Amino acid sequence: MNLDAALTELAHRLGPRFTRAPASLAQYSQSETHISGGQPDAVVVPQTSDEVAMIARLCAKNGVPMVGWGAGTSLEGHALALKGGVTIDFTQMNQLLSVYPEDMLCVVQPGITREALNDALRATGLFFPVDPGANATLGGMAATRASGTTAVRYGTMRDNVLGLEVVLADGRTIRTGTSAPKSSAGYDLTALFVGSEGTLGLMTELTLRLHGQPEAVSAAVCAFPTITDAVDCVIATIQSGIPMARIEFLDATAVEACNAYAGTSLTVEPQLMVEFHGSPAGVQEQTERFGEIAAEMGSSGFTFAKATEDRAKLWRMRHNAYPAILALRPGATALVTDVCVPISRLAEAVEGTRADIEASPIMGPILGHVGDGNFHAILLVDRNNPAEMAIAQRLSSQMIERALHLGGTITGEHGIGVGKLGYMAAEHGAAWDVMGQIKRALDPANLMNPGKMVRQK
Amino acid sequence: MNLDAALTELAHRLGPRFTRAPASLAQYSQSETHISGGQPDAVVVPQTSDEVAMIARLCAKNGVPMVGWGAGTSLEGHALALKGGVTIDFTQMNQLLSVYPEDMLCVVQPGITREALNDALRATGLFFPVDPGANATLGGMAATRASGTTAVRYGTMRDNVLGLEVVLADGRTIRTGTSAPKSSAGYDLTALFVGSEGTLGLMTELTLRLHGQPEAVSAAVCAFPTITDAVDCVIATIQSGIPMARIEFLDATAVEACNAYAGTSLTVEPQLMVEFHGSPAGVQEQTERFGEIAAEMGSSGFTFAKATEDRAKLWRMRHNAYPAILALRPGATALVTDVCVPISRLAEAVEGTRADIEASPIMGPILGHVGDGNFHAILLVDRNNPAEMAIAQRLSSQMIERALHLGGTITGEHGIGVGKLGYMAAEHGAAWDVMGQIKRALDPANLMNPGKMVRQK
Repeated sequence: MNLDAALTELAHRLGPRFTRAPASLAQYSQSETHISGGQPDAVVVPQTSDEVAMIARLCAKNGVPMVGWGAGTSLEGHALALKGGVTIDFTQMNQLLSVYPEDMLCVVQPGITREALNDALRATGLFFPVDPGANATLGGMAATRASGTTAVRYGTMRDNVLGLEVVLADGRTIRTGTSAPKSSAGYDLTALFVGSEGTLGLMTELTLRLHGQPEAVSAAVCAFPTITDAVDCVIATIQSGIPMARIEFLDATAVEACNAYAGTSLTVEPQLMVEFHGSPAGVQEQTERFGEIAAEMGSSGFTFAKATEDRAKLWRMRHNAYPAILALRPGATALVTDVCVPISRLAEAVEGTRADIEASPIMGPILGHVGDGNFHAILLVDRNNPAEMAIAQRLSSQMIERALHLGGTITGEHGIGVGKLGYMAAEHGAAWDVMGQIKRALDPANLMNPGKMVRQK
Repeated sequence: MNLDAALTELAHRLGPRFTRAPASLAQYSQSETHISGGQPDAVVVPQTSDEVAMIARLCAKNGVPMVGWGAGTSLEGHALALKGGVTIDFTQMNQLLSVYPEDMLCVVQPGITREALNDALRATGLFFPVDPGANATLGGMAATRASGTTAVRYGTMRDNVLGLEVVLADGRTIRTGTSAPKSSAGYDLTALFVGSEGTLGLMTELTLRLHGQPEAVSAAVCAFPTITDAVDCVIATIQSGIPMARIEFLDATAVEACNAYAGTSLTVEPQLMVEFHGSPAGVQEQTERFGEIAAEMGSSGFTFAKATEDRAKLWRMRHNAYPAILALRPGATALVTDVCVPISRLAEAVEGTRADIEASPIMGPILGHVGDGNFHAILLVDRNNPAEMAIAQRLSSQMIERALHLGGTITGEHGIGVGKLGYMAAEHGAAWDVMGQIKRALDPANLMNPGKMVRQK
């Protein structure tokens, strides 16, 4: 590695958008969770795709690692520069470049945030539906194959990224996909880069699918005596073909946390929070049919939130579940777990997790995007207490092993990063080696986010 | 290549399910279209995944090419053994292995056909929606990333294959995906193999997403004065959020062919054939809203087909459009084109194509899955007339160039095979080289369907 040569040249080319200041670098060695470590040797803040390509060529020439950085909201330490090198901060590549209303598409730079994008789209009658909770960047969301509360209706980033501009490890720029709604022309490189966590290339432009803002929206929240009842309601709802826009689960502990934080008074029982999108008549029908299914499954305390402000309050409460849960134990850090199972095995997975947590000294409310079989336990830990951290890691491992045993995955939406790398072999077996073959083919010098995703030598 | 050693061993192991009989081999050098050529040295008919792995190991050891074969309905010569070797006929691996109704999934062997699968699923209340017209095998449909009339609602094979078992070029077997509805765990190998046309591996098992059979279905057909009016109706319908199950276009010539073949009397004008799925009230609402939009766009001759038999008649007519068009010129072969453009450019693309065809001596009705921006001209040619073939090839090239110019793709659903290989560089540029890098990484000896997909040396 010829680090100095690369950094001298980058400093020269980028001026104030290059830094080696220790205080700045330290910010890029932290994450939102308990995972930290690894620090870049420099941070660059490009403004154009050409600058990214220039940076990649210089890094490639000098053998310097490259790590992308968006909003820093990832939960598994994806953007930590484990091998040093250059962190590429995309926050100044944050433009909505174009909107094609008739094609329901837009083209964005990777550093635009989800909220900024939807603000910019508001007047078009269209919106970008993927909502992981955090105000992440679209580049980061694509890199981790993010999803969130609306995936049950609108899909994940896999379904909503139609094409990419990518700068490869050697500085070449490629375009994947077209603006046509579908294609059978060759390997699906778009899908390969989405979820590759910066280990195959750096996304510099994304073509996104947009959706029409629904004419009518209604929401509801309803309590169930048991987790199984709530999950059975989810299964019956999805099987009945009701096109749910959101169907979120909170266990009793999570409900308690939300009540305390938001000043609400939901029944302290497992709850489903649901949302319906469609025409006024369609939403009416969906709501009624869901209400019937929920009643059959023993739901009580069913409350509709038709008015915009009531709905906003409901989803603000859900979006604030993370700080609400953190507030249960002031000063604690969260170890946020993330597994996803076939929906038929969801009750088993959630109840097993609940029992494991209750048998431990750790507090850990559970919530999830249950229409997708995806749920999280938010384990509240003192990161400076190794014994507690070990217990939390064991609980997380138990969830993961149970998910795999039930035919599920080690991560539904948060990705691999640092935190899940140790489980890749268990999920993928020999297919993990195929990922390594692809990585070596596209990045033989291992410069793109090294230390992540594939088997480490 | 040590062909004899491989074939001797395969003959020994597979007995009557191995053949070198010239008459048999000749069948595998033909396709449904004008594309032919290439003949395997032997055909094997495995019955299990283990047999496929054994075949692959023997072929790998002896440097023998391997080409998968399903129903033989591909339109671009995908399954032609251009470099000889062994054709692997999957027709005896045709089982529905399991159905998971609560998870709305099933697991199939690659040789099951679309119709056989849906027959087997009937009692479950679920169905597999992807419908390319031909009674193709699911393995073939996945390999070409097929779609068809229902993709506008249910997606293509990209969206409906959740996981795979794949035998690689060296005989290793891997599993991609899980049974969970989504995952962020690593590179999306499922998406990489779907559409790879047998050049990266042989699929031996597929996990498919199923959908609930709609409670209510209604269909309609309506004529428009011009192609632009019909396409404007499609754009307005999709933008309005009506969840169309099918929205098919036939130009006046295609309508004429269908009338003659099916004995119907549709107005000889551009027509849209549409279908709605949902609850009875939902279908009623969708139908009314579509009717209003169609009327605004100048539609005439609007006919509903609510009764099952009327609907069946309508879709039989659409499914028989291919033979109907062939019957316009007895003895002719079809050169079936396939492009896909952003829907905003669809009228321009179809009208340009119509004009090109009319300026030529060739008959070529146009039809398409216009909700996806995907359309076909069925060029009727005498394959023994080189001058005519050259004109048809020129028309096809013009369609492709126009599609690329309009931001579209060289193939919406038929794939690359032999027929479209020459256009890959134009669509993908440097990204085509990345496909080549992936191919070389997974199949360094170029044994999996050689001569296809990537740049040929």
